[in-house]
Amino acid sequence: MTHRFVHSRRVEFADTDLAGIMHFSNFFRFMEVSEHAFYRSLGFSVHDFRPQPDGPAIGWPRVHASADFRLPIRFEDEIDVELLIERIGNKSISYVFRFWTPNKKVAATGKFTVACVQFGESGEPMKAVPIPEEVRAKISEAPPELIELSAKS
Amino acid sequence: MTHRFVHSRRVEFADTDLAGIMHFSNFFRFMEVSEHAFYRSLGFSVHDFRPQPDGPAIGWPRVHASADFRLPIRFEDEIDVELLIERIGNKSISYVFRFWTPNKKVAATGKFTVACVQFGESGEPMKAVPIPEEVRAKISEAPPELIELSAKS
Amino acid sequence: MTHRFVHSRRVEFADTDLAGIMHFSNFFRFMEVSEHAFYRSLGFSVHDFRPQPDGPAIGWPRVHASADFRLPIRFEDEIDVELLIERIGNKSISYVFRFWTPNKKVAATGKFTVACVQFGESGEPMKAVPIPEEVRAKISEAPPELIELSAKS
Amino acid sequence: MTHRFVHSRRVEFADTDLAGIMHFSNFFRFMEVSEHAFYRSLGFSVHDFRPQPDGPAIGWPRVHASADFRLPIRFEDEIDVELLIERIGNKSISYVFRFWTPNKKVAATGKFTVACVQFGESGEPMKAVPIPEEVRAKISEAPPELIELSAKS
Repeated sequence: MTHRFVHSRRVEFADTDLAGIMHFSNFFRFMEVSEHAFYRSLGFSVHDFRPQPDGPAIGWPRVHASADFRLPIRFEDEIDVELLIERIGNKSISYVFRFWTPNKKVAATGKFTVACVQFGESGEPMKAVPIPEEVRAKISEAPPELIELSAKS
Repeated sequence: MTHRFVHSRRVEFADTDLAGIMHFSNFFRFMEVSEHAFYRSLGFSVHDFRPQPDGPAIGWPRVHASADFRLPIRFEDEIDVELLIERIGNKSISYVFRFWTPNKKVAATGKFTVACVQFGESGEPMKAVPIPEEVRAKISEAPPELIELSAKS
Repeated sequence: MTHRFVHSRRVEFADTDLAGIMHFSNFFRFMEVSEHAFYRSLGFSVHDFRPQPDGPAIGWPRVHASADFRLPIRFEDEIDVELLIERIGNKSISYVFRFWTPNKKVAATGKFTVACVQFGESGEPMKAVPIPEEVRAKISEAPPELIELSAKS
Repeated sequence: MTHRFVHSRRVEFADTDLAGIMHFSNFFRFMEVSEHAFYRSLGFSVHDFRPQPDGPAIGWPRVHASADFRLPIRFEDEIDVELLIERIGNKSISYVFRFWTPNKKVAATGKFTVACVQFGESGEPMKAVPIPEEVRAKISEAPPELIELSAKS
């Protein structure tokens, strides 16, 4: 059971803006990239994952996303995006993130709450469903002191 | 004195993702586009604005950004992004946002806190400074009931 | 019958990069935005357009895209993206584009060749098909001297 | 002396569009990412590279970019972006690119021509300059048959 994951991503030229630093919206993309790499590390793909072979696909749309920015990150910086599972609900998961610069400073912290949903036939809206057992079996909530650290550091 | 602004932006093909809807990170870009259009409406540009002709430029980096997502928005939807000034501090401003769909539903709400900073000579870090008087003279905080509405609607 | 269209798009902060100008990849996005606005101006949407009500959707994937860059364009510039139809084939269309700066200079030229395809049931590959008559009826090739001008100006 | 380089990049969720495949504009970003990784492999950074310690920075803006698309690439595909040096001029370099899918098919080919420029003091336009000797010493043109292969394969 895992509650922590680290994914490394280098800042690309197109991620920057005229202020010379990474555009703030790309922090959210980095958080998602880390979440998807975490999901792959568990043996799943975030796309078209079907708990039953002929059953409907489930997905994880965001219902909340936030970030607090402390330090700019720059072109070619290789950033460690640390993911921690803050809370596993019945039909949702909350993640917190820390962005570690090459010299081990926290450039930003962030949070996602994602809902577990089942996609209906085309046209039907998606519907919140319980997290599949096979996913739940592989993940756990991080110890509160790790999360705390995240909020502070 | 203004506390509210609405900017319209159509969802472009490149704003969508394979789930068939606008990628969540682009909600943050739409919020920024609305903020910059608001700033232009006051007679300023967010880029290279210098209160004194030979003085240093000031800028508005984000220190916080968040969004709550309720409804997907789709390719070619024309979205009204409503901006409200929640709080004017000494050296920072908080904005709240509502995303209005073509049929007048709130698809998402959001929030930015931006710091007013002065850019030093290249190499020097930026420094928080009081909001220039000419900006402060043109803006005001929105009535709390409008903000409230934003959180609820 | 139309062979020319102009769509205006303002350069957004997130469109720029650390060189202080619009990132070159966004010229391709602007070209696509202009193409889709052109298609809307004909009464169609580029998405899920079905010549027969119950028939398969057709789409227009790019098979070629190119651009030549002459002048940088900058944050908040409002650019007129001019589209000209260079050639209407049986199953494809070629467009050329010119980017007009606020002071009427050509910042870039570009070209798309798009194929008309029919999407199969999920899993099946897409298949090139003749351009629907209702689309063909509304468009024409631009006079060669207009295209010529585009290559030169 | 090097004339070939391969950089691997995984397709991220935000790189896709509602057609379920990578948005065509991101092929251009992948090509640039490969070019910059190549430049790093030579011991340089594309940003703020100064041949003389106190001299002006040089950069490599694109004057031409093109791509031909053959096969869609999809979320989570890990793509090998192969770069070949087609031509080294006095003040410019042309690169060709091939996109290799996980099952070794060419999904797209592309081309960049980049100019070597010197950035003036702010306000001054950039100026084409000869490629620095230390860069030229490390690169060579690819054999024509390799380029040929690229155009065909």
